[in-house]
Amino acid sequence: MADSAPTSDDVKTLIQQVSNWGRWGNDDERGALNLISDRKRAQAAGLVQDGTAVSCSHALPVVPTIENPVPVQHCMLAAGDLPEGAVIPGLSYTADYFAVGCHGLATTHLDALCHFVVDGKLYNGFDGTDVTSVGANRNSVMAGLDGLTSRGVLLDLPALHAVDWLDLGHRITRSELEQAEQRQGVTVEEGDILVVATGRDARRAELGPWSFEEGFAGLAADCLPWLHERGVAVLGCDGISDAVPSGIDEWAMPIHQIGITYIGLHLIDNMRLDRLLDVCRARDRSAFFLTMAPLPLERGTGSPLNPIAIL
Amino acid sequence: MADSAPTSDDVKTLIQQVSNWGRWGNDDERGALNLISDRKRAQAAGLVQDGTAVSCSHALPVVPTIENPVPVQHCMLAAGDLPEGAVIPGLSYTADYFAVGCHGLATTHLDALCHFVVDGKLYNGFDGTDVTSVGANRNSVMAGLDGLTSRGVLLDLPALHAVDWLDLGHRITRSELEQAEQRQGVTVEEGDILVVATGRDARRAELGPWSFEEGFAGLAADCLPWLHERGVAVLGCDGISDAVPSGIDEWAMPIHQIGITYIGLHLIDNMRLDRLLDVCRARDRSAFFLTMAPLPLERGTGSPLNPIAIL
Amino acid sequence: MADSAPTSDDVKTLIQQVSNWGRWGNDDERGALNLISDRKRAQAAGLVQDGTAVSCSHALPVVPTIENPVPVQHCMLAAGDLPEGAVIPGLSYTADYFAVGCHGLATTHLDALCHFVVDGKLYNGFDGTDVTSVGANRNSVMAGLDGLTSRGVLLDLPALHAVDWLDLGHRITRSELEQAEQRQGVTVEEGDILVVATGRDARRAELGPWSFEEGFAGLAADCLPWLHERGVAVLGCDGISDAVPSGIDEWAMPIHQIGITYIGLHLIDNMRLDRLLDVCRARDRSAFFLTMAPLPLERGTGSPLNPIAIL
Amino acid sequence: MADSAPTSDDVKTLIQQVSNWGRWGNDDERGALNLISDRKRAQAAGLVQDGTAVSCSHALPVVPTIENPVPVQHCMLAAGDLPEGAVIPGLSYTADYFAVGCHGLATTHLDALCHFVVDGKLYNGFDGTDVTSVGANRNSVMAGLDGLTSRGVLLDLPALHAVDWLDLGHRITRSELEQAEQRQGVTVEEGDILVVATGRDARRAELGPWSFEEGFAGLAADCLPWLHERGVAVLGCDGISDAVPSGIDEWAMPIHQIGITYIGLHLIDNMRLDRLLDVCRARDRSAFFLTMAPLPLERGTGSPLNPIAIL
Repeated sequence: MADSAPTSDDVKTLIQQVSNWGRWGNDDERGALNLISDRKRAQAAGLVQDGTAVSCSHALPVVPTIENPVPVQHCMLAAGDLPEGAVIPGLSYTADYFAVGCHGLATTHLDALCHFVVDGKLYNGFDGTDVTSVGANRNSVMAGLDGLTSRGVLLDLPALHAVDWLDLGHRITRSELEQAEQRQGVTVEEGDILVVATGRDARRAELGPWSFEEGFAGLAADCLPWLHERGVAVLGCDGISDAVPSGIDEWAMPIHQIGITYIGLHLIDNMRLDRLLDVCRARDRSAFFLTMAPLPLERGTGSPLNPIAIL
Repeated sequence: MADSAPTSDDVKTLIQQVSNWGRWGNDDERGALNLISDRKRAQAAGLVQDGTAVSCSHALPVVPTIENPVPVQHCMLAAGDLPEGAVIPGLSYTADYFAVGCHGLATTHLDALCHFVVDGKLYNGFDGTDVTSVGANRNSVMAGLDGLTSRGVLLDLPALHAVDWLDLGHRITRSELEQAEQRQGVTVEEGDILVVATGRDARRAELGPWSFEEGFAGLAADCLPWLHERGVAVLGCDGISDAVPSGIDEWAMPIHQIGITYIGLHLIDNMRLDRLLDVCRARDRSAFFLTMAPLPLERGTGSPLNPIAIL
Repeated sequence: MADSAPTSDDVKTLIQQVSNWGRWGNDDERGALNLISDRKRAQAAGLVQDGTAVSCSHALPVVPTIENPVPVQHCMLAAGDLPEGAVIPGLSYTADYFAVGCHGLATTHLDALCHFVVDGKLYNGFDGTDVTSVGANRNSVMAGLDGLTSRGVLLDLPALHAVDWLDLGHRITRSELEQAEQRQGVTVEEGDILVVATGRDARRAELGPWSFEEGFAGLAADCLPWLHERGVAVLGCDGISDAVPSGIDEWAMPIHQIGITYIGLHLIDNMRLDRLLDVCRARDRSAFFLTMAPLPLERGTGSPLNPIAIL
Repeated sequence: MADSAPTSDDVKTLIQQVSNWGRWGNDDERGALNLISDRKRAQAAGLVQDGTAVSCSHALPVVPTIENPVPVQHCMLAAGDLPEGAVIPGLSYTADYFAVGCHGLATTHLDALCHFVVDGKLYNGFDGTDVTSVGANRNSVMAGLDGLTSRGVLLDLPALHAVDWLDLGHRITRSELEQAEQRQGVTVEEGDILVVATGRDARRAELGPWSFEEGFAGLAADCLPWLHERGVAVLGCDGISDAVPSGIDEWAMPIHQIGITYIGLHLIDNMRLDRLLDVCRARDRSAFFLTMAPLPLERGTGSPLNPIAIL
């Protein structure tokens, strides 16, 4: 698949190769999260050295931009302009309210395993219609109730190519992932949360936001077998993990479509990675303790998220 | 203060005793979070033994109840009933939307330091009017951007009293907190996240939810100097930390009013503690790694939260 | 059907009797609104005498009550506490935001013809699945784009029975409707908007709100053929038009289920009628100009509404 | 004021000239709505001839555009994909939800008299801080509870200039308003709802939407005394009534700032007028019955609106 664009038949073969359907039982709704054992979490805690904590989340994006056409709505319910007791007798307090549809290109968020439907099916073969107009009866974000905590590995693609950011549309191959590993002296292992930096934050800071149509650097479809072989438990990116365009007819977002639906991979889209890159580069670190917890929204398709790396 | 109800003068004295205004500089907006050093976080990571992870959050409460008069609103934006390409060409995906005002008695949430105004002032002496109708210019929830991670200590008050839950209105004294420490063989230390269990989840499971007016078990005002002396960094509770009623005229919620505004204490209200109690009791654990990360809402007064304990 | 509870077979017969499917073409999405001609509207304008205008809407219900478990959410976006120019340079303005799910027992609202599905079908035989998770492809509230304006006729059932309000669960029969007409000296005609007062506002003012389970006064199913014969274009009520319980097995809300789906009747639920009753009783008026306009929400299932009677 | 840009002193004089503060009492919150008497409404009803009804509202704008940066959010709560009884036993119904901040350049909406603050004051001299972070204690949209119904007069400025639309930034003078009256053979009278067409819908249809910064055709400040003299009760426009830029330093939106705050004029922004223009031009009509009713949102600053003209 490396040299020429994959055909539909290639994709079918690839799906058979990576599918985890049935691997953890016919009722499983956790997918590759099963690869994070208690022991793995304990080992991850052992990576903490000086205790520096770094958020990998953008502020909830309340300002409309080309990458954020439907911003988070933030309103006040009570501010400091009110006399004491205006709302609750004897008290003076402030409160607010927000509304969010987390998917898209702006909010740092987790994709639940119900977020994509391929050929009418969800991860593990559940029917797409199990996601109803009142919510997901299968594969909801509740799979992440107890948090997603493991060893995080940051692969620094801009550093590999000695650039500030990858070109829009750059398709990262499995070979590049392995080169990044070698350069950084780290190996992605079973149960890891893999975080791929494309330099999106640096590019946005310099050139401003851009639209889906302009393209995104991200993983090529040939990374899917590699993700599967290595046993990646969760995949995060400063972009949306997918290279846009994908280069494959009829598969606009194969990392989402196949990664979520066949591998059972929870994705973290739109991570803020500039701060983590700074810290990791300065300390020559590639692996660290990484933890995040979706809001437990029953029947939800995802959650805004504030992932925290501790080094 | 232990034997008779405190007077207004007592409260004034108490405030002078516990106030952290100016302690970390005149511009400080982090309050007692300053007590969590990198080193403290690293030590906390050292508490992880077998790696068991436990959420301390209720599912986002979407069903109206007496304790949840304004429920979280959850709606679908696209479900699995749509033909492929109905929303995005070539793709079949699902998405949802929720809206939340996190404060109150139902949602597990973090109170930012701007959440209460006392005598016209916020924590560290900022003016209450700094919380405007477009949001908090001071003491917003962004203080928690890099997460709240430290040693968590669970004080099990129902076990101390050999009951399933404390009576409504039970005011936990500093003496009871110390008795709980002794019984459990743990000592609350500087930088800890203190979690006080009152048995609310057990009571709700048995008797259903109840209203603010019916009362809540929680800390008496005389715990405030103790929290200050011990250097508690964050205080969480299955209730709202405050005993209701407080027993002090004109101070309906002293733990919120004085804890937030003078000590600079972030509070975690409405934690789900039944699962954590089970795990801690079964393993005879009282201290563990505890981590949580508010959604980074600029100018926000709080955040829904999914705190994760790792043992 | 008058004396004993109707059977399922009775209901089937009734449906055949009242169905307007196909009457205005196979593509029709307006139903009984077709009975309001331009001429009818012009005649209605001729009913205006002194020009008194009366709202038939409750304030948007923002306070949770037993009849309003999911209240309208109202938040401020900018208030008068801000310095000039805080949001827009050189200007000082205020703004707010609200969120509403209009159906239920509290908000005065219009039910679009897509609001009910019976035997898998919508009004005029469209498939229920035409209402998708992104909205109604058929029978949306856009049928009311140019407003619902006609002769309004108020039937005053409490006055007929010389009570302040009908008992909960009172099933108004076609005979009672005709008695009310006779008492008031008015006859419901083709294209009219029929408004049935049950005294709900008076009862609520006296006794407070109540739940669906406690029952509602409303029309018995035997009124459906009468509504059809008379050519009622729109049906409104201070309750929800249906008597609750309906008294018919398997048809919990026949006025909604059959009225909307077979007759093609737009319903106005939860009208505020106390003020209109006062005005009509004082002037001995039963017919008046009545106008209302749903918000044009494409693919919407209904709209909050402020109907205005002009006498 | 016609030939050269007005100075700050000119504006002060103008304000004194047009101010209605105190005119209807010190507690008045209705402003120029007081000019619509019952008799005026009755006369307006007499304008109805053939009964044609025309909506003057855009569909609620759910799609983000340059003129609609924060779109209305529309979500489903239940669609036709659910089995009967999924939400309510025995019933199959559909429901939705929307959230709207009505102000801005896209939603057809009414501005309440609390929407602008000038020199710290609202209409009738109330303090700007009466609009608090929990809503407007004065001059809320509840002034329109019983609807805004009167004679509507449409002034067709594009026809006056024999163009499809006015240039962006075109400042309509009082002289042009009078020329439009003469050309159309109509005179704006006390209590009228004046509707000014600038051709915005035609321009948008041809060239797409545009931003505030690109400018809007609208009334020049010198129309304010004219609006006052004539006794206009409500002012509507396909734009936002104000010409942008206004041409007056420190008064970015004088029609809003002075019209709302001093005259007490409710404004209708972003009316859809292309359909009404078609109908009025075809029938050579300029005056008609016009009715609209805001949603009764207590303490609200405005309302989305569907105004209906009946000819």
